[in-house]
Amino acid sequence: MSEPSRTHVHTEVLNANRDYVAVFGDKKDLALPPARGFAILTCMDARLDPAKYAGLSEGDAHVIRNAGGRATDDAIRSLVISHKLLGTKEWFVIHHTNCGMELFSDEIIGDLLEDNLETAAFDGATWSNPKHGNGCAHGHFIKWQTISDNERSVVQDVRRIREHPLVAGHIPIYGYIYDVKTGRINEVKTATEAGKATV
Amino acid sequence: MSEPSRTHVHTEVLNANRDYVAVFGDKKDLALPPARGFAILTCMDARLDPAKYAGLSEGDAHVIRNAGGRATDDAIRSLVISHKLLGTKEWFVIHHTNCGMELFSDEIIGDLLEDNLETAAFDGATWSNPKHGNGCAHGHFIKWQTISDNERSVVQDVRRIREHPLVAGHIPIYGYIYDVKTGRINEVKTATEAGKATV
Repeated sequence: MSEPSRTHVHTEVLNANRDYVAVFGDKKDLALPPARGFAILTCMDARLDPAKYAGLSEGDAHVIRNAGGRATDDAIRSLVISHKLLGTKEWFVIHHTNCGMELFSDEIIGDLLEDNLETAAFDGATWSNPKHGNGCAHGHFIKWQTISDNERSVVQDVRRIREHPLVAGHIPIYGYIYDVKTGRINEVKTATEAGKATV
Repeated sequence: MSEPSRTHVHTEVLNANRDYVAVFGDKKDLALPPARGFAILTCMDARLDPAKYAGLSEGDAHVIRNAGGRATDDAIRSLVISHKLLGTKEWFVIHHTNCGMELFSDEIIGDLLEDNLETAAFDGATWSNPKHGNGCAHGHFIKWQTISDNERSVVQDVRRIREHPLVAGHIPIYGYIYDVKTGRINEVKTATEAGKATV
């Protein structure tokens, strides 16, 4: 059977994967539970590479990522599995500067999607729909987890995790903001304070 | 003010970050929207490094990760933002072999958490609680997104995204399973077929 036609991106990913397989070596013996016993919750932003900015090798730590690095129910589902079943004992919540989630509101994205589902034009600060039609009102019924104040969002998220009934009190939760201009993670001390172990 | 005492892991992460900052260089100029216009949804598993297995540099692509790499509402929230506001046009769903999510059920984790919140003992296949007491019944009311058949979970997740009312029909969604013994991503052809563009 002939190979299907693939997009340029799809082919590039498969070629990169082939190169990785060629140097994979003894990573085949890595254990399922994270060797260094911690987890990071951070944003999906393309500029962030948690393995690089936090010094992770394969097998070291769980990495959970969503839009904003928010402590959603799904992120907490993942964190509870991470600790209860796979033994992580410390967690980092790492948001970042210039996050897309600071630039819109539930109303803005709801309106954009209601108008149409195509990518909106972005001028670096706001979005507009160049074309119109064939949208969906469903977006107005989703909580998009936008961010109005970066430090505050880290504190809120650390607190939400700290106060969750399925999170063991001895797990410290550290709050940070990654600076996309320097690569540095800067601690949000009030977040780390809110996330300190309670037992 | 003196620095707070930090755990070994916490100090290691800060030291690794210092090294990254030292070589950060021109990554300060990266744009917010992903330069290569795609997103990957994959598992939080510590053995997976999507930047390495898919050949991503900082700025290239969105990476969304949760327990299992499942197409939860939160993952779809992130994907819709990724396309509508930040221009990604192709998506990969990449689960993996030997996933922890294949090894338990909602009932198992619910019972383990109801008994106590400490890390359960893991023998590579199943979990048991060495100690008892101070648990929480809340875990029985969460859908944990466990996986009973790996290929089927990829197909289900690609289909859920494909059929979501806020996902544009022209976005192709590719389904893969990462092999933790080789580093290779193997296509689940029925998933990619289910995820092909509809317009």
